[in-house]
Amino acid sequence: MNNLIVQKYGGTSVANTERFQAVADLVVSSINSGVNVVVVVSAMAGETQRLINLAKELQETPDPREYDALVSSGEQVSAALLALALKERNFLSKSYTAHQLGLKTDNSHGKARISSIDTDTLKKDIDSGIVPVVTGFQGVNASGDITTLGRGGSDTTAVALAVALKADECQIFTDVDGVYTTDPNVYKKAKKIEKICFEEMLELSSLGAKVLQIRSVEFASKYEMPVRVLSSFSSTGGTLITNEESGLESAVISGITCTDDDSKLILRNVPDTPGIAAKILSPISKAGIDIDVIVQNVGSDKLTDFTFTVKNEHSNKAAKILNDLVKTLGGGEIELVKDISKVSVVGVGMKSHAGVAARMFKALAEKQINIDMISTSEIKISVVVSKDKSKAAVTALHDEFELDK
Amino acid sequence: MNNLIVQKYGGTSVANTERFQAVADLVVSSINSGVNVVVVVSAMAGETQRLINLAKELQETPDPREYDALVSSGEQVSAALLALALKERNFLSKSYTAHQLGLKTDNSHGKARISSIDTDTLKKDIDSGIVPVVTGFQGVNASGDITTLGRGGSDTTAVALAVALKADECQIFTDVDGVYTTDPNVYKKAKKIEKICFEEMLELSSLGAKVLQIRSVEFASKYEMPVRVLSSFSSTGGTLITNEESGLESAVISGITCTDDDSKLILRNVPDTPGIAAKILSPISKAGIDIDVIVQNVGSDKLTDFTFTVKNEHSNKAAKILNDLVKTLGGGEIELVKDISKVSVVGVGMKSHAGVAARMFKALAEKQINIDMISTSEIKISVVVSKDKSKAAVTALHDEFELDK
Repeated sequence: MNNLIVQKYGGTSVANTERFQAVADLVVSSINSGVNVVVVVSAMAGETQRLINLAKELQETPDPREYDALVSSGEQVSAALLALALKERNFLSKSYTAHQLGLKTDNSHGKARISSIDTDTLKKDIDSGIVPVVTGFQGVNASGDITTLGRGGSDTTAVALAVALKADECQIFTDVDGVYTTDPNVYKKAKKIEKICFEEMLELSSLGAKVLQIRSVEFASKYEMPVRVLSSFSSTGGTLITNEESGLESAVISGITCTDDDSKLILRNVPDTPGIAAKILSPISKAGIDIDVIVQNVGSDKLTDFTFTVKNEHSNKAAKILNDLVKTLGGGEIELVKDISKVSVVGVGMKSHAGVAARMFKALAEKQINIDMISTSEIKISVVVSKDKSKAAVTALHDEFELDK
Repeated sequence: MNNLIVQKYGGTSVANTERFQAVADLVVSSINSGVNVVVVVSAMAGETQRLINLAKELQETPDPREYDALVSSGEQVSAALLALALKERNFLSKSYTAHQLGLKTDNSHGKARISSIDTDTLKKDIDSGIVPVVTGFQGVNASGDITTLGRGGSDTTAVALAVALKADECQIFTDVDGVYTTDPNVYKKAKKIEKICFEEMLELSSLGAKVLQIRSVEFASKYEMPVRVLSSFSSTGGTLITNEESGLESAVISGITCTDDDSKLILRNVPDTPGIAAKILSPISKAGIDIDVIVQNVGSDKLTDFTFTVKNEHSNKAAKILNDLVKTLGGGEIELVKDISKVSVVGVGMKSHAGVAARMFKALAEKQINIDMISTSEIKISVVVSKDKSKAAVTALHDEFELDK
């Protein structure tokens, strides 16, 4: 539909009745500017956790079907409350659960994927001047059981609705006013990004994940739905995520991310036989541990060094698996280093600009920051550094690529 | 279905996770005794009020559709939590909302009437050894909107399900262990009634309303579904409400009720013309005020006295209406007495026992309790007395009819 915007308000945006009033005012102000609005809401901040705590008191690992039926109630409360606030402002409004809307998902409780949305009801409402308020985060499977889409799933609901309704834009209202060039807590010169393309946003996931669910960006990217991240607490401009590449004139680098919960596992002097990487990594993957950066160095004397990173929480388990493994590999020493950080520069601009890597490594060298590992993709270069150097690395790179300009 | 019991647990019975554990144990103990159980639950104590308060902060008179969508979430939480507690005890269990069950109602938000229940899902579950836990209080109208059945509506859900499933019995678990011969707070010799017929229970409404919703008794009476009131906090026997009349051998009187929120309005010396009662009472009814006991005395000289009772909260409004009215009636004086109490003796036994009224009036006279008004039905005699005498009246009658025996 033309002239339609889907707006999603997260838990902090609807934390109490004062916040519902503020959100209702934001919706009204959008409508008064001449657009139609469909609203998606999360549960009030803290509510989902309260329900999870209740569930865990009754069953340590709660049954997935009942867990979803339980936690989805929080969004139902929010949707009804916002509809009341809109009605109090003399707007027609109706709340909808996934059941009422026919928002179908697969059967994966707790991380369900949306399979179809019946938009008839919403379209009729919009045509009748009714503002629909839809429960985020929830769906219904083929058996009619309530499912949930996983943490941050309301973002995905909003993007999926925007796609299904062919909206002009999906606006994600949250408690920060956009995506920044780096975490402002790490470097105070971090600057809000006005516009960014889907590809960059996905690579900036560790920045973005604090702002919006990455799955919703994938979804938006696939269907080319523009997503705007905005604050419901201030009226600054936000960040627009679109499919437009910025082209030659754009900044080479759009953002810098850094992690603080990674570990490095080094396997030294393992026999350099074909398929050694698979032999090492398969048992780690099978244990459900995600592997991030992988580097293999050619060693000497038919021996090789093999290094990879995992999240801290999985490092001890991974080290144990490797210890069992080296016995069957015919040699090798294992080292586990917990205090590392992965610093990445991201930007579609680097596709067309040579020498980004060289500038990056030079800037780090000038600050005496040692690079442990390097990993590159078409629009991202990541380096692994000692954790105590990560802030300095972010600062150096932010200055080098002039992201505060 | 044979060998099936519907059990309803109210808000105080599921006030916290400890209570959910206790209720799950009660359900399990019933199942272990060899019956199939379908459970109906209310919202956790305080939860519905919490949601109502939120709604009222956003809209003084909340929109009925959204109000119902909002408050019905409390039962969804309870149903899921109880299902978790049953699963933790290794029983198959599934929670169901009205939507999922096809529990249809009319369109009267806030006081909807159940129109149909699709029992297929429940029957299949029972046949598969699954314990269904159904949200009380809620339904769905023809448009798919969530409706609620009014305060205490979970009792009605339970009785309606018991009727639809042709259960053997509907058990209402609450925080008192049954219906008493009178309010134990009024007379400590009050005794729990083991068995009572629907007719008596309906007349004992002012006692019963504290224990179970009267509409559910009407429903049970219509379909002859035995209802047992039990405490979820103790394992005493409860009260069975059935269609069996106790017959000749039964007690003459089964219970005594007294009210403490009635007012008496007296119209003296109004012209005794045909239709005077209608002229007086119509404007009161039209104002939405329920009239309880009505007495008209033949006066002298073509004048008559007319007295009736209303709830205290409506008494000033009723008096104002009468003041306007007497001007058009051609005379009359109005008196409003707020401190009155209606004391009633109830029992199907009085049908076959003459002299119950005489015994009642004599017992009251012996205690110097003055009777203001008298009203009788086939199985009830009510007297209006001064409020400061109501406890003495209940005590005298309880002793007279030996209800503690």
